[in-house]
Amino acid sequence: MVLSFLSDFGLQDDFVGTCHGVIARIAPDARIIDITHGIEPQAVLQGSIVLANTLPYVPDGVHLAVVDPGVGSGRRPIAARDREGRVFVGPDNGLLIPAAERAGIEAAWELQNAAYRLEPVSRTFHGRDIFAPAAAYLATGVVPEELGPPIQPATLVRLAVPVPEVGDAKIRATVLYVDRYGNVQLNLARSDVERAGIEPGTLVELELELDSYYATAARTFADARAGDIILYEDSYERIAIAISGGNAAEMFSISPGDELTVTLVA
Amino acid sequence: MVLSFLSDFGLQDDFVGTCHGVIARIAPDARIIDITHGIEPQAVLQGSIVLANTLPYVPDGVHLAVVDPGVGSGRRPIAARDREGRVFVGPDNGLLIPAAERAGIEAAWELQNAAYRLEPVSRTFHGRDIFAPAAAYLATGVVPEELGPPIQPATLVRLAVPVPEVGDAKIRATVLYVDRYGNVQLNLARSDVERAGIEPGTLVELELELDSYYATAARTFADARAGDIILYEDSYERIAIAISGGNAAEMFSISPGDELTVTLVA
Amino acid sequence: MVLSFLSDFGLQDDFVGTCHGVIARIAPDARIIDITHGIEPQAVLQGSIVLANTLPYVPDGVHLAVVDPGVGSGRRPIAARDREGRVFVGPDNGLLIPAAERAGIEAAWELQNAAYRLEPVSRTFHGRDIFAPAAAYLATGVVPEELGPPIQPATLVRLAVPVPEVGDAKIRATVLYVDRYGNVQLNLARSDVERAGIEPGTLVELELELDSYYATAARTFADARAGDIILYEDSYERIAIAISGGNAAEMFSISPGDELTVTLVA
Repeated sequence: MVLSFLSDFGLQDDFVGTCHGVIARIAPDARIIDITHGIEPQAVLQGSIVLANTLPYVPDGVHLAVVDPGVGSGRRPIAARDREGRVFVGPDNGLLIPAAERAGIEAAWELQNAAYRLEPVSRTFHGRDIFAPAAAYLATGVVPEELGPPIQPATLVRLAVPVPEVGDAKIRATVLYVDRYGNVQLNLARSDVERAGIEPGTLVELELELDSYYATAARTFADARAGDIILYEDSYERIAIAISGGNAAEMFSISPGDELTVTLVA
Repeated sequence: MVLSFLSDFGLQDDFVGTCHGVIARIAPDARIIDITHGIEPQAVLQGSIVLANTLPYVPDGVHLAVVDPGVGSGRRPIAARDREGRVFVGPDNGLLIPAAERAGIEAAWELQNAAYRLEPVSRTFHGRDIFAPAAAYLATGVVPEELGPPIQPATLVRLAVPVPEVGDAKIRATVLYVDRYGNVQLNLARSDVERAGIEPGTLVELELELDSYYATAARTFADARAGDIILYEDSYERIAIAISGGNAAEMFSISPGDELTVTLVA
Repeated sequence: MVLSFLSDFGLQDDFVGTCHGVIARIAPDARIIDITHGIEPQAVLQGSIVLANTLPYVPDGVHLAVVDPGVGSGRRPIAARDREGRVFVGPDNGLLIPAAERAGIEAAWELQNAAYRLEPVSRTFHGRDIFAPAAAYLATGVVPEELGPPIQPATLVRLAVPVPEVGDAKIRATVLYVDRYGNVQLNLARSDVERAGIEPGTLVELELELDSYYATAARTFADARAGDIILYEDSYERIAIAISGGNAAEMFSISPGDELTVTLVA
């Protein structure tokens, strides 16, 4: 069975490799697909967005995700099954919810059964001691009912996802994600910009805290000259800002959580 | 079958993981070997050098490579087969050519067949929607003829690789690559430095834009004292500059594309 | 068979991917588990600690580790078998010893047999040409006796591991490792801090070169308020310093090798 794995562990330390080792000891035949381990440290919202964005591209199976600032506190370790049979494993802090709700959450469990943990469980590395073992046992065919008592899905912690204000010719948006190329993903869908009258070819003004810039709504990088700022629909169907041949996030000194205004000029 | 994968995607985002997912859905039994995803963003020449350098060390199979500043423009997505049966998949921007020409390019195709893409194809992530699916189908046994119409190999885009000027006791060279340790790979082979009279043990002067340094031609780091600058043949049979126990690229503030002069002193 | 792999190669270059390729050509059925390749360049002590820490979590098999500042010098390339049958492969510079000594070193060999190397062996990349091939042949069932002549385990190079000075209510400690989250691992076990009278809930003073800070001995991050400095036992059973919700290494400008004093206040 395929086990996908997303975290904020980075690849500098052994955290990811250690979890791979733990999984391979329990489930030698499971194939692990690392979605990414580059989520910003403890950025639960960012992790939840990436997990949900990428889910359709990953084989169905067990989906392990760990961004866990609350490790060692009372937050519950959980498994949740969606209506298509995928099982998500991770902390009950909202990380799993947007992905699991794509198909709808059918049931959830708290990971309490010591037989499916590495004992003694450390206080700071539940990825290794609780989540990776649970995911590995699921990948060997253990049913989630074995892992612990059921939880009402309605009681699972949910994140507040920032909602844009879409007006006539003006949108107040929030940065969700910045990628390696400096492309800036906003909390906007194509329907939002269309509602504000922004279409490919129109000119917009981007107002940040200190500066403002003109940008062109475009279909793709190739529609713009090098150095042009463009507003486009990215490959996960979110509206994003890029600089053709450049790094928009660096130029704007912008990062996830920052807000900006997009105004239709002409 | 083995599928090797090189890109400039980095590992901070989900791009590599998403492509792994796409490949695993299409070709569950293919083994993926990640050559590197650390090519500088959009550095096609650098990517082409690493792909060609590493090819002899990777199992023969399907070789997927994506460094694609022209995504969304008219550049063709291609597959190319070499005379030993390897198939290369990526953008027609020169990236694949030095590797594919090691054994000689036998045939090429444009990736037009929608049956072997993820539809709808996004405008900005052809790695996910065109290249990874094509490579995955090839790994399942689909023949490249199925992927689209043939292309004359002579029409494939080729990169201008910087050529050194090798004189008597003087060489004008260009930096091709800088690695994690700060070692600086030049566009020189051993025959170039020998032609200029530089042999192990000789002293040379390195002239950069603003500074000049003395270096010793050496066989390996261990021939030099800590802090010494050496000129040596690296593990891919290119001439490179290193500082024993130090970081040459940092000390010289040098990066790919920069030029320097190597002069024989004694 | 499982082959684990740790190095200071980083993932920016092709070094890790090339070694994976070399291994896959020799041992197509071996599964590779990458512990980490993020060891600081040439940080042998740090690499040895991570290798030993993670060993219990990785399937038993062949354990390849390369942090090799002496490549090209006279340092021996070795394999060492422990009393539980694991075989370690890497340079004879102390890197392998703390891991191999967990179960006790039973025998060791120098990797001299050219039949199990990539010839010609380069002067600067023994990971590719000597260590990865040796590990791969071992994973196919070649016995270490085949790889070269035996070495007396007592002659293997050993690292000086910094030893803490534990007094009454005062400890002089050394930083061993700093992780992605900025948590600072010290060369202390729980028994050391208990001997100095430090227990969960007690207040301690941390004296660094230029500054001093108060910290609380705690069981986990969740025992502290955001911003609090805590002294805790980490998931590898070493005493470490963290800032709840923050980055301790950055705040203290501290890195491996630095010393500090921990004094019991109350």
